[in-house]
Amino acid sequence: MCSVISRVKPCHRALAVSLRLRTNTDSPSYAAAQSRRFSPGLSSGVEPLRVASRSYSSRTAMTEGLLFRQLLELESKTYTYLLADTATKEAVLIDPVLETIDRDLKLIGELGLNLKVAVNTHCHADHITSTGLMKKRLVGLKSAISKYSGASADILLSEGDKIPFGKHCLTVRDTPGHTDGCMTLVMEDQSMAFTGDTLLIRGCGRTDFQQGCAKRLYHSVHQKIFTLPDQCLIYPAHDYLGQTVSTVGEERKFNPRLTKSIEQFVDIMNNLNLPKPAKIDISVPANLVCGLHEV
Amino acid sequence: MCSVISRVKPCHRALAVSLRLRTNTDSPSYAAAQSRRFSPGLSSGVEPLRVASRSYSSRTAMTEGLLFRQLLELESKTYTYLLADTATKEAVLIDPVLETIDRDLKLIGELGLNLKVAVNTHCHADHITSTGLMKKRLVGLKSAISKYSGASADILLSEGDKIPFGKHCLTVRDTPGHTDGCMTLVMEDQSMAFTGDTLLIRGCGRTDFQQGCAKRLYHSVHQKIFTLPDQCLIYPAHDYLGQTVSTVGEERKFNPRLTKSIEQFVDIMNNLNLPKPAKIDISVPANLVCGLHEV
Repeated sequence: MCSVISRVKPCHRALAVSLRLRTNTDSPSYAAAQSRRFSPGLSSGVEPLRVASRSYSSRTAMTEGLLFRQLLELESKTYTYLLADTATKEAVLIDPVLETIDRDLKLIGELGLNLKVAVNTHCHADHITSTGLMKKRLVGLKSAISKYSGASADILLSEGDKIPFGKHCLTVRDTPGHTDGCMTLVMEDQSMAFTGDTLLIRGCGRTDFQQGCAKRLYHSVHQKIFTLPDQCLIYPAHDYLGQTVSTVGEERKFNPRLTKSIEQFVDIMNNLNLPKPAKIDISVPANLVCGLHEV
Repeated sequence: MCSVISRVKPCHRALAVSLRLRTNTDSPSYAAAQSRRFSPGLSSGVEPLRVASRSYSSRTAMTEGLLFRQLLELESKTYTYLLADTATKEAVLIDPVLETIDRDLKLIGELGLNLKVAVNTHCHADHITSTGLMKKRLVGLKSAISKYSGASADILLSEGDKIPFGKHCLTVRDTPGHTDGCMTLVMEDQSMAFTGDTLLIRGCGRTDFQQGCAKRLYHSVHQKIFTLPDQCLIYPAHDYLGQTVSTVGEERKFNPRLTKSIEQFVDIMNNLNLPKPAKIDISVPANLVCGLHEV
């Protein structure tokens, strides 16, 4: 059985403070927030964010003092991302997979990193997360996921929350649609966005299970991701064609689904006729408890 | 039959000039060069190259004005690299694979790039290159490979040759050992090196076929790659564990083979007992003619 749930509540407040996260009580309710953000008739309920003033190279933006690694789990084609401050060695891991926990821990050890937070962009249906098992192997590691995911974790995140590591931080944008609890994590200089299954390279996550809603996904992408600078690099949770990265500018131009009108998009998403993910029945229950269910 | 061979000789000199490559007659003979480089008793026959003076961020070095894409062919786990000058749009493609030619050409088209050169780091045994077919689809594209590979191509490269694209260029370092014609391509600021099968992440190419020689590979890595700056990113031709990138510093510290003495290394390489690559009998003959054999 999972031993994570029992540990969540006692340390949650302390963690939220130490990680400079807003507590749950600071946040407006999700429904109210959503109603403001996605008001009918408003083309953009969220003010476009300003581009950071520092100059960076078009389409190869990289943040100074950042160690960055993209890692692929070959069966589910899931990308795991390791980010660290090169000075303090504090690190964050995004979407780690159970099958590759040894590879990831070995790398973290070799690089001498202090992994602070392992965060899932959402409750995955196609693979089991390694966050729970990783917590057992790394003292002090905290798991994190969206408060709207329905999953347990040490840190429950929502819009505007920050995950700091050294001088860097990732900021949460709620981007529901593939699931209720999907988030996009954006680097402080808006040079990179980790979009989970919300926005894939020339695609997007399916919306036909797990609270999926094509309209919500469309709004999430247009209001929360396409408002980032064109040069912002898009790092998705998956790619099935061997592509590793895209940019906001490219997806705004070339994404075959999200360049369509919302009506066309909903029609496309309602007619994908995809098979049920092979591992959904074991992955979702496991991922609701940091992947430790039946491990 | 391949139509490339007939085109090679007439345009070779013009290409060499237009691409500012040394002509074959400018180069010392390979055997003579090797004997100077790997003289017994000299720990380093090649002077370590000086680190470019511009500052870049540790382990996330990226060259300004460079568009960079890493692409994976999922069956052979081959990495293809697309590099372009963001201003002039001139581009170079490294190690493209036949199976992913449509994906790669689509991306090149979407990004509005002018692909000048498609280069193979060596004559691959595990997959067929797409350079020949790509030449048929892109007017003006030139293929390139090492002059020591025994393969035909528009441009035959050797130590010190440069492949310019816009304001950038890749410089050739001969790094034989996996095959006679293996090259490492180094960005002008030494922020990135494309090592082919010479140096893999925590590994290296096998040396038990196709003129393979463990001693030569060891010398190549130590004298031509490990002399690059520690922060220089290593982009290999393959990875079988889902790793995408390493650094010179990491491989100097953690490569389980190349941190050993040359005697231990040779012993390791002589006892790998690897199966024959499944596609070697069709890949090598095809790759000797830009992949067009039997296509």
